[in-house]
Amino acid sequence: MLHRIMRIHIQNPIDDPLFMFSHEQWDTAAARAGDIGRGHEVTLGDTDEDFAAAMEDAEALVTELGVMLRLFPCRAPRLRLIFVTSAGLERLAPFDWLPSNVTLLNNSGTHTEKAGEFGIMAVLMLANRVPGLVTNQRAGKWQKQWGSLVGGKRLTVVGLGGMGAPIARWGRLFGLQVTGVRTAAAPHPDCDEVITADELDRVLPSTDYLALACPLTPATRGLLDRRRLGLLPQGAGVVNIGRGALLDQDALCDLLDSGHLSGAVLDVFTPEPLPEGHRMWTTPNVIISPHTSVDEPSSYNPRSLDIFFENLRALRDGQPMPNVFDTTRGY
Amino acid sequence: MLHRIMRIHIQNPIDDPLFMFSHEQWDTAAARAGDIGRGHEVTLGDTDEDFAAAMEDAEALVTELGVMLRLFPCRAPRLRLIFVTSAGLERLAPFDWLPSNVTLLNNSGTHTEKAGEFGIMAVLMLANRVPGLVTNQRAGKWQKQWGSLVGGKRLTVVGLGGMGAPIARWGRLFGLQVTGVRTAAAPHPDCDEVITADELDRVLPSTDYLALACPLTPATRGLLDRRRLGLLPQGAGVVNIGRGALLDQDALCDLLDSGHLSGAVLDVFTPEPLPEGHRMWTTPNVIISPHTSVDEPSSYNPRSLDIFFENLRALRDGQPMPNVFDTTRGY
Repeated sequence: MLHRIMRIHIQNPIDDPLFMFSHEQWDTAAARAGDIGRGHEVTLGDTDEDFAAAMEDAEALVTELGVMLRLFPCRAPRLRLIFVTSAGLERLAPFDWLPSNVTLLNNSGTHTEKAGEFGIMAVLMLANRVPGLVTNQRAGKWQKQWGSLVGGKRLTVVGLGGMGAPIARWGRLFGLQVTGVRTAAAPHPDCDEVITADELDRVLPSTDYLALACPLTPATRGLLDRRRLGLLPQGAGVVNIGRGALLDQDALCDLLDSGHLSGAVLDVFTPEPLPEGHRMWTTPNVIISPHTSVDEPSSYNPRSLDIFFENLRALRDGQPMPNVFDTTRGY
Repeated sequence: MLHRIMRIHIQNPIDDPLFMFSHEQWDTAAARAGDIGRGHEVTLGDTDEDFAAAMEDAEALVTELGVMLRLFPCRAPRLRLIFVTSAGLERLAPFDWLPSNVTLLNNSGTHTEKAGEFGIMAVLMLANRVPGLVTNQRAGKWQKQWGSLVGGKRLTVVGLGGMGAPIARWGRLFGLQVTGVRTAAAPHPDCDEVITADELDRVLPSTDYLALACPLTPATRGLLDRRRLGLLPQGAGVVNIGRGALLDQDALCDLLDSGHLSGAVLDVFTPEPLPEGHRMWTTPNVIISPHTSVDEPSSYNPRSLDIFFENLRALRDGQPMPNVFDTTRGY
C-alpha cells in the first residue's frame, strides 16, 4: 500500500528541453491539486546517476518514454507507481519488465484538447482540398480545386479515447455524421453511431473522412490494411494522429498516387523520423506533420501533473486510478 | 415599379461550367421559394446573341462578374434589376455605367457557411504551424515545430459581413478572444469587442491571428500597409479571404521571409492568377489557395438563387432588398 505522503522522483529527459519539468511547474501544479499535492518528498533529476540514486527509495516515478526505454529495468526496491508522460506506451511492450507490484500509468487525457483542434482542422483541410493546394503550390501551379462544406459528410473516427472523442465532438458541431469505432459498440454522446472494428468494412465505403486516433495494440496494428483502405470511396481523405503502423503506409501512398484518395493529413509514420528520400515526402496530396499534432509545450507539463495528482487522489480515496495502463489490452 | 411576375434572363458564363445555372436548378429553387418563385418568364443563355436578344425585354438579369465586365454597358430598355453572383463587385467600379433606374444586387451571404469553415480552418492551421510544416515538407525536412491551442489567443477579424461574421462566431466557439473591425464600432454578438479601422493600430500588437474578410473599397485598399503589418507581434499569422489588395503583399512576404510572422493562409492575391515565378510561390510559411476558399460548386447556384428570391420577396413586400449594392461605399 502506498502512503499518502510519497517519495516521488521526476526524471527529466536529457535532450528535450520542451518537456522537462521544473520545480516551479511542480509547485504550481501541487498547489492547484490542494491537499493531495502537499507534503510529498520530491526529487528532480536528469542524469543516470540522479536516476539510480533516486530509485533506491522512490515510491513513485514521473518520467517520459525515452527514459523508460533507456533505464528500465532497474533496481527500485520501493517503487510502486510509474507515471509515463505519453499516452501510447506500445514501445514498452512486452511488459514482462514490469514487476507485479508496480502500477503503470499513462498520460491519456493530456492530449485531448489539442487532439480535438488538430483533428477537426485536419478534417476541414481535407474538405477544403488543402493537401491538393499544397501539392500544386509546390509545383508553382495556380489551379482551382473546389472544396466542400463538411456538414452532412461522413466522418469515421477510430478510437474514442482522449484523442478520438474530441474529434467526434467537434465533428458533430460542424454538422458531420459521425461514426465512432471502439472495442465495445456502446453508444457515445458525440457519435451518431458506434461500431466495433469488425464492422469497418460496412462503413468505409460511405466514409468521406477517416480519422485514426486509437492506440497501437496487437488488435489495431495494420487495422487499415490495403484491402480496407481500398474500401474508402473515390475522393475520401485520411487523418492519422494515432500511430503509423495502424495502416498500410505503402497502400495509402498508392491510393494517393492514383488519385483514389483526395488527401491525407498525417502526424505519425513508420518509421519516425521519416527518412530522407522516403516516398511519403513526395507522394501527392499529403500533409506531413512530424509527430507534433497533439502536444503543446506551454500546457503539456502542467496538464500532465494535473493528471498525475488526479490519479494520486483516486488512489488515496480507494477509487480506481483513471490512467492505469492495461498491459494486456495495450492501452 | 417592377411587376410581381417578371421577365428574367439568366446569362451563364461560357467558360466556367461549375457556375452555370441549369433550368433544373432554377425550377428547384423557384419551388423552394414558394409564391415568389412562380409565374416568371425566364430565359437562359450563354452566347452574346442570347444576351443581346434577352436584353430587349428583360426586367431582371441574373449573371456573373465576367459577363458584366464583358457585355456591359449595353442596350436594355426594360432592365430594372441586376443580380451578380459575386459578393465583391469592385471590378465593376466606377459605377457610372449603371443607369439610375437599375438596382444592382450582389451575392453577399452565399459564401457565409464556407467562409466560416475555411476561416476557422485557416486560424487552426496557423495555430498548428501548418504553413511551417508544409515549408519543411517541401524541403524533405523532419523538424518538430510545436503548435498551440487557440483558446485564449486573440483573433482580429476585419469585416463582419457574410464572410467575417462566421469566422468570428467559430472563433468564439473555439475560445478565441475576438475583435471585429467594421465601419461602425457597434457591438456584434460574435465579437468580444468591435472597433473601427482607425483603432487597428491599438489592437494589432496583441493580435495572434489577423483574418481579412472585408470588401475591397477605396477605404480598405491597402488597409494593412507595411507599417500596420509590422505592428503584428512576433509569431503572429495572417489569413486573407477578402482581396489581395487589402494588404501590402510585398511587405507580407518580407515579414514571412524574416520570420517575424509565423505563417499566412492566403486565398487572394495581386495579381490573380499569381504569375509563374512570383515570389509568393517560394515565400516560406505560406499556404496558397487559388481564390477558391469560399465557393462550393454543389451549393453555390442553389444558394445564389435563394438569395435572389429573398430579394424579390422583399421588393414585392415593399421592404428594402437585403443585397442592394451601394455603389458609393462599394459593398
